[in-house]
Amino acid sequence: MSEGLEGVVAASTRLSQVDGEAGRLIIAGYAVDDLAPAATFEQVAYLLLNGRLPEPDESTTFARDLAARRELPHAAIALLREAADANTKTMDALRMATPVLSLGSREDPVEDAMTAIAAFPTIVGSYWRIRRGESPVPVRSALGHAAHFLHQLSGSEPTPERARALETYLNTVCDHGLNASTFAARVIVSEAVIRAMLDRGERIMGFGHRVYRVRDPRADVLAAAAERFYSSDGDRSIYELARHVEATALRLLREKKPDRRLDTNVEFYTALLLHGIGLPTELFTPTFAVGRVLGWSAHCLEQLRDGRLIRPQSLYIGPTDLHYDRDRYGAPV
Amino acid sequence: MSEGLEGVVAASTRLSQVDGEAGRLIIAGYAVDDLAPAATFEQVAYLLLNGRLPEPDESTTFARDLAARRELPHAAIALLREAADANTKTMDALRMATPVLSLGSREDPVEDAMTAIAAFPTIVGSYWRIRRGESPVPVRSALGHAAHFLHQLSGSEPTPERARALETYLNTVCDHGLNASTFAARVIVSEAVIRAMLDRGERIMGFGHRVYRVRDPRADVLAAAAERFYSSDGDRSIYELARHVEATALRLLREKKPDRRLDTNVEFYTALLLHGIGLPTELFTPTFAVGRVLGWSAHCLEQLRDGRLIRPQSLYIGPTDLHYDRDRYGAPV
Repeated sequence: MSEGLEGVVAASTRLSQVDGEAGRLIIAGYAVDDLAPAATFEQVAYLLLNGRLPEPDESTTFARDLAARRELPHAAIALLREAADANTKTMDALRMATPVLSLGSREDPVEDAMTAIAAFPTIVGSYWRIRRGESPVPVRSALGHAAHFLHQLSGSEPTPERARALETYLNTVCDHGLNASTFAARVIVSEAVIRAMLDRGERIMGFGHRVYRVRDPRADVLAAAAERFYSSDGDRSIYELARHVEATALRLLREKKPDRRLDTNVEFYTALLLHGIGLPTELFTPTFAVGRVLGWSAHCLEQLRDGRLIRPQSLYIGPTDLHYDRDRYGAPV
Repeated sequence: MSEGLEGVVAASTRLSQVDGEAGRLIIAGYAVDDLAPAATFEQVAYLLLNGRLPEPDESTTFARDLAARRELPHAAIALLREAADANTKTMDALRMATPVLSLGSREDPVEDAMTAIAAFPTIVGSYWRIRRGESPVPVRSALGHAAHFLHQLSGSEPTPERARALETYLNTVCDHGLNASTFAARVIVSEAVIRAMLDRGERIMGFGHRVYRVRDPRADVLAAAAERFYSSDGDRSIYELARHVEATALRLLREKKPDRRLDTNVEFYTALLLHGIGLPTELFTPTFAVGRVLGWSAHCLEQLRDGRLIRPQSLYIGPTDLHYDRDRYGAPV
């Protein structure tokens, strides 16, 4: 038992190493005091996304690609206006507008990451101006990331000193092991990891579970509900077919994996039951969310009441002794 | 090191107990096969939010309160229309519309939870209809939760059998220990726990850190950046005042907590630096997000590449042998 996961190592990473005893922070190989005051935010972004600093031509291409993603979708601006009308705090407005960035996304995780990184300053700047009764200013692709953020806020170009001060700040806080928000991001994404595993054919949906070593008790409840429902309504032959498929799959699984318990799980009867009541497949997961939002909510309230900060550690497996070469990669005067 | 946190107990809970070895699931004291087929979703919601089943009059009041929260804000419907135009998947549309539910929220966590629980069916139903070129149907407060979900989808009242089948499903999946989405919710909320602790005066911002036992290395970078910035721009007297406050606070902390290392941390110089470059206090956290989105993104991509499902366990500390009394609490015929 480790309430708050203190001291538990939950993931290995090449991104940053927080050494609390020595008072050291390494960003992908570079000490934070070496990297943060010298590098551009774009260089640090390239470093974290690619594992090394960019060569000059890569740097230019990357910065241009990032700058091209600054503009917000129309729907995000409309939402920010509604948020301002409701006197929403800036962090909450950022939280509301961020998911809208994925409108029309090609579902490429790297592209989605680039868009989020590029557009956060536009969201915060636009919202700040809307809240004060001003119009958002058009994005400027010629400005660096930090300068562009200040321009989005004020509508005018910042001095190089101001932009550099902000850039040093952004570089300094860009990563810090598994802090709560980062850990939350990894936890969320780890659900997509399952999907990728399944896509590679590593599991058969409907059988087996990470936690249950015997039959999933929810499967029995849903099997009984399905049997009850199909006896009053729906196509009984589908029910019979599904039970037949289940028996066959269990027989094959026991032949191929005799050492493992692979019982029918909740997904199998979920599909049968939700199909029976007429829900299309695309709505299965949203319908799961309609039920599970209850547990999410109750857990949030319980955590608020009794919990402590959940903050495990990470194991850094990248280099620690790189030096930011100001001649090679550039630095402010 | 526990990659994926398998077997690590990360929180204690009164909500549900998953016993993988015995194949048992307890929902706040009730076996899932006892509770799920008999109770209404509203009763289960009350149970998870209050720790016990509602008496008949409480049940009526609670169901009425939940039903009164079904309607979506105008901005959510507008966003769903944009999402449909961009051919967004239903789960992504749900993810986009959910934060909009907090427009005008009074920041009461229980109320926010009730609204999310009540409005998820409206979001999914409305989006489903919009995607198919139909208009969303008005909410109906007289229908039970499960029946209302089906009505939102189809525009007509479902048979009692269909509603009961869905209700049994929703009850069955309403909670399941620390599955990844639930754990993510707790991780996110645990950040609010810090805020509450600070509000109770348990910490002084700007000094000390959960991980660093010595001086935070980022503080040095930002102290140097602040000194550099204030020497060229900004109000130098603010810088001098802040350094004076820092020295005083450190002296007092060492007097009062001589056994603890409480050094100046990154927040202290963050405030000094961001104030210096002209950012208002409300933008400090959004500006942090503008920098940290980089680490969030890089961690997500790393997790997608290398990680496994992060799924710790919880320690159930509630009762396990309650029985759903159908005479007392009601049950379908």
